[in-house]
Amino acid sequence: MSEIFDIIVVGGGPAGLTAAVYGCRNSKTVMVIEKSVFGGQIVNSPKVENIPGFDSISGDEFGDKLLEQAMGQGAEVTLENVISIDRKEDGCFLVNTEESGAYEGRSVILATGTTHRVLGLEGEENLIGNGISFCAVCDGDFYRDKTVVMIGGGNSAFVESNLLADIVSKLIILQDMPFFTADQKLQEQLFSHSNIESHVNTKILGYEVAGDRLKGVRYSQDGQEKYAECDGVFLAVGLVPENQAFKNLALLDERGYFMADNTCHTKTPGLFVAGDCNAKTLRQVTTACADGAYAAIAASEYIQSLNEK
Amino acid sequence: MSEIFDIIVVGGGPAGLTAAVYGCRNSKTVMVIEKSVFGGQIVNSPKVENIPGFDSISGDEFGDKLLEQAMGQGAEVTLENVISIDRKEDGCFLVNTEESGAYEGRSVILATGTTHRVLGLEGEENLIGNGISFCAVCDGDFYRDKTVVMIGGGNSAFVESNLLADIVSKLIILQDMPFFTADQKLQEQLFSHSNIESHVNTKILGYEVAGDRLKGVRYSQDGQEKYAECDGVFLAVGLVPENQAFKNLALLDERGYFMADNTCHTKTPGLFVAGDCNAKTLRQVTTACADGAYAAIAASEYIQSLNEK
Repeated sequence: MSEIFDIIVVGGGPAGLTAAVYGCRNSKTVMVIEKSVFGGQIVNSPKVENIPGFDSISGDEFGDKLLEQAMGQGAEVTLENVISIDRKEDGCFLVNTEESGAYEGRSVILATGTTHRVLGLEGEENLIGNGISFCAVCDGDFYRDKTVVMIGGGNSAFVESNLLADIVSKLIILQDMPFFTADQKLQEQLFSHSNIESHVNTKILGYEVAGDRLKGVRYSQDGQEKYAECDGVFLAVGLVPENQAFKNLALLDERGYFMADNTCHTKTPGLFVAGDCNAKTLRQVTTACADGAYAAIAASEYIQSLNEK
Repeated sequence: MSEIFDIIVVGGGPAGLTAAVYGCRNSKTVMVIEKSVFGGQIVNSPKVENIPGFDSISGDEFGDKLLEQAMGQGAEVTLENVISIDRKEDGCFLVNTEESGAYEGRSVILATGTTHRVLGLEGEENLIGNGISFCAVCDGDFYRDKTVVMIGGGNSAFVESNLLADIVSKLIILQDMPFFTADQKLQEQLFSHSNIESHVNTKILGYEVAGDRLKGVRYSQDGQEKYAECDGVFLAVGLVPENQAFKNLALLDERGYFMADNTCHTKTPGLFVAGDCNAKTLRQVTTACADGAYAAIAASEYIQSLNEK
């Protein structure tokens, strides 16, 4: 550990990499630490049509472009798993990784994203982005006039379903509990559509595929095995932020998301948060990128305030 | 006037066009009304390096891509000047243009942007984007180790100057008043750099060019004509939102910017605001696009709530 970076970014998705671009362009030294794949969750989307400036691009390609852009601006990057962060007495941060000890930074931007909870069924991993989706705003249009299954019954399942209802020919909701937990208003809104079929008390048993193509969902209900033929499945069984390791530095809400102000500040001076890991209402590439820009500007201003002392 | 659009977007810059993309992908009909150039202010920047996914692109090309993307998703567009908006008794909006009467919409997204105030000097218009800039975050890097003149003396001039001070070899500030009006802290921060020269009580007389290249600024001070040789000029003499025509529907702050919540709602149901026209701390393409996404989702939800009634 030798260099002290101006900004250490934890997470190499759209928020983290955009923060890196903005940090570098403010003449700050930046290290981005990503634990698995640069580009973030969007790399699982084979076709994205709502990133400004790209009429159609694979999430993977977008991730590559953003990574190259950040590195082209001078950001350093490393593939390591951050396990904790300590704030030293001098105000600098030690970002501890599983692999190589610690990186030291004058400021830190946490852009740790979220993970979609999955069911853990056979073949599920390969179907993600290829029949299994998580985001109606992103992928709904690919199922225009087709049949989709929504797995889940809470607010996000109904928010997603309300978006899908106008697009698909048929939407089948499968919920494990004996009732739906979504807000009544969301439920009323959805069931005012005529193309909705819903089943409670279900247990998902598995996915049926033909070749590499999803063709249906097997589930049980009242002890009977049933089958829902479909062109796509949307999973809305929860998102999992991965922020617990950092709760010493930034407040978490009851669901584990960072609570920050509009401009990405936290309770800890010099620590900023950006992207899907934040409590926010719309988790999209474009809103993550905006957070990254806000956080990098905030970090740059923080570092400049240190220089004046 | 026949069709009632789900969403009418006023302004065809990054915020408005991103809103159009998101609206269309939610199966909403969208009309975008732009008064001068689709793409917004960014079309004046010849080289932009901080738009996520584009390591380097002209603002013009980005604007074209975004326009094509919105139209490809089904948005209709028109070049007209919106002069007022009325909310009918049935809740629909009449968006009145100078050219063709009115467009009717169930919801409206105002993405009217801002205009940089300029000095109105000879040749100024041609130099914008070609020696005259407004944004250190966007363009500062192009003046690395060069000399720039900052015209202005308020907070934005000093915020921009503080960003430039670490990049350029010499920064000359020319202020018309007898003192600077920026916050003391911003002034202290700037004048802690050794590469700053400043002059108050100045009056800018004109730009000197060689070919199409800016090479200096002529100004007067204490009755004497003076000359500042430079590679670029940053103008920070104010931004002008153009929101007065809509103050019947959305609250304006004391500077004329829209006051909206985080998710772009205004006091008027069905009316949303997005992008630089809003009161916000960072006006960048990426933050404008994020606003556009938020506003389009909010408008879509609003329209769905109407359908339930």
